[in-house]
Amino acid sequence: MTQKMSNIQKIVKYSNGTLHEHEDDIVLEFPLTIFVNNMEFATMVCTPTHFDEMVIGFLASEGVIRFRDDIKSLSINEDRGYAYVELHAEITTSQEYYSKRFIGSCCGKSRQFYFHNDATTAKTSTSTTTLTPEQCIKLMNDMQHNSIVFQQTGGVHNAALCSSEEIIVGRTDIGRHNALDKLYGYSLLNRLPVRDKVIVFSGRISSEVLLKAAKIGVGIVLSKSAPTDLAIKLANDLNITAVGFIRGSSFNVYSHPDRILQEKKEE
Amino acid sequence: MTQKMSNIQKIVKYSNGTLHEHEDDIVLEFPLTIFVNNMEFATMVCTPTHFDEMVIGFLASEGVIRFRDDIKSLSINEDRGYAYVELHAEITTSQEYYSKRFIGSCCGKSRQFYFHNDATTAKTSTSTTTLTPEQCIKLMNDMQHNSIVFQQTGGVHNAALCSSEEIIVGRTDIGRHNALDKLYGYSLLNRLPVRDKVIVFSGRISSEVLLKAAKIGVGIVLSKSAPTDLAIKLANDLNITAVGFIRGSSFNVYSHPDRILQEKKEE
Repeated sequence: MTQKMSNIQKIVKYSNGTLHEHEDDIVLEFPLTIFVNNMEFATMVCTPTHFDEMVIGFLASEGVIRFRDDIKSLSINEDRGYAYVELHAEITTSQEYYSKRFIGSCCGKSRQFYFHNDATTAKTSTSTTTLTPEQCIKLMNDMQHNSIVFQQTGGVHNAALCSSEEIIVGRTDIGRHNALDKLYGYSLLNRLPVRDKVIVFSGRISSEVLLKAAKIGVGIVLSKSAPTDLAIKLANDLNITAVGFIRGSSFNVYSHPDRILQEKKEE
Repeated sequence: MTQKMSNIQKIVKYSNGTLHEHEDDIVLEFPLTIFVNNMEFATMVCTPTHFDEMVIGFLASEGVIRFRDDIKSLSINEDRGYAYVELHAEITTSQEYYSKRFIGSCCGKSRQFYFHNDATTAKTSTSTTTLTPEQCIKLMNDMQHNSIVFQQTGGVHNAALCSSEEIIVGRTDIGRHNALDKLYGYSLLNRLPVRDKVIVFSGRISSEVLLKAAKIGVGIVLSKSAPTDLAIKLANDLNITAVGFIRGSSFNVYSHPDRILQEKKEE
């Protein structure tokens, strides 16, 4: 499997007042088209690593599969950029609904869901995990330290699945949703319980990121950046604790702050 | 039309070793579903400004329309988050192809196109516009200066359509493609010639960004960040000059450097 994330290329650089030839490390971007039971399902553009995790995470996220055992076979043709997935069953989610708006007239509470498949796959968290402020800051520092090598080409998204204490697995992608799909796929492939886990993410908590966290099944999302108002509404609805702007020794808690607990100091 | 981009909300802040109540400015994220000739076409999640520009730019980008006069009527229902577009003609692009992979077996040169609609709408640039290094740096500084107020909530994408000398219009969105669609819509609504214009963008030049620039019709894209390898391939194919990492007094030219010309110094 390809694991290279960047390539050295010749460019023209302007510095010190002159244009001159130079070499630069260019981040790779790879279009992967997923076929499910021989039907074209979707094309994603991604950093070409961990294709199997990404495909499995994406299909679970879209409600096509629930467990790794739903998949009969998965093969990747890297030259063509195709992933072939065969399921044991017929495809159960209607492809018609893929990226279609969820228009719920009967249930006001669901109005934050705007995509049909999300309304069926995003779960309300039942996590009882809590973190101390120090653990929030440590996990973010760990992820950033872990990712330094990938940041040299600029602008990739880093995501990590963690216990309260440490990073279990970290993934990188130019697409924010891909980085999270890779974590989701990892958890399914390795049958990892997720309810007590935490997601740490380098980018903004958009509604899409929050929904992915709900689908993966965690109760806490930590981010270096800020959430959107829609992500906060979804987090409130789905019982997820969204923590953002973790920088230095401070951060903000945007929803369900009951999971962030200061240890009682002895008096 | 809504022009508010953010909202003050109550949050819990951790700083100086304690958790306490606080207020924070939260960026808005708004799902807008576009109906074309009474058929659901797509849902985009966006910063709720300039809906008309975004819808028109998106439809042009997808090959549904070519000119503003192709649209008979456009109305936005902000409460429901719906945009209703009526065309003079039947919808010409097949919705079946929307986000479907472009699988070209006859034409090796087109292999960088991975979405069907891109292959029909992204144009090879015929721009003869050139910029001096000083103009590249000035345009980026102008856009960043212009956008300072929006950066306080963190992480929005800023894009501007410029002449060689100055910004004509700037747009902001949480979605990179939306910011560019708004520029595209602006140019169509105002019948602005684009061949001699320049796009300045705050984020990475991904393949998607490069393709949007090609669809809009500019010859030069300036970015604060780096392009991907796929974006550089597309830029080479489509005769677009991609300039990245414009920071301080230096930058990199990744494709067609012939449009970046140093003025001859007098000897």
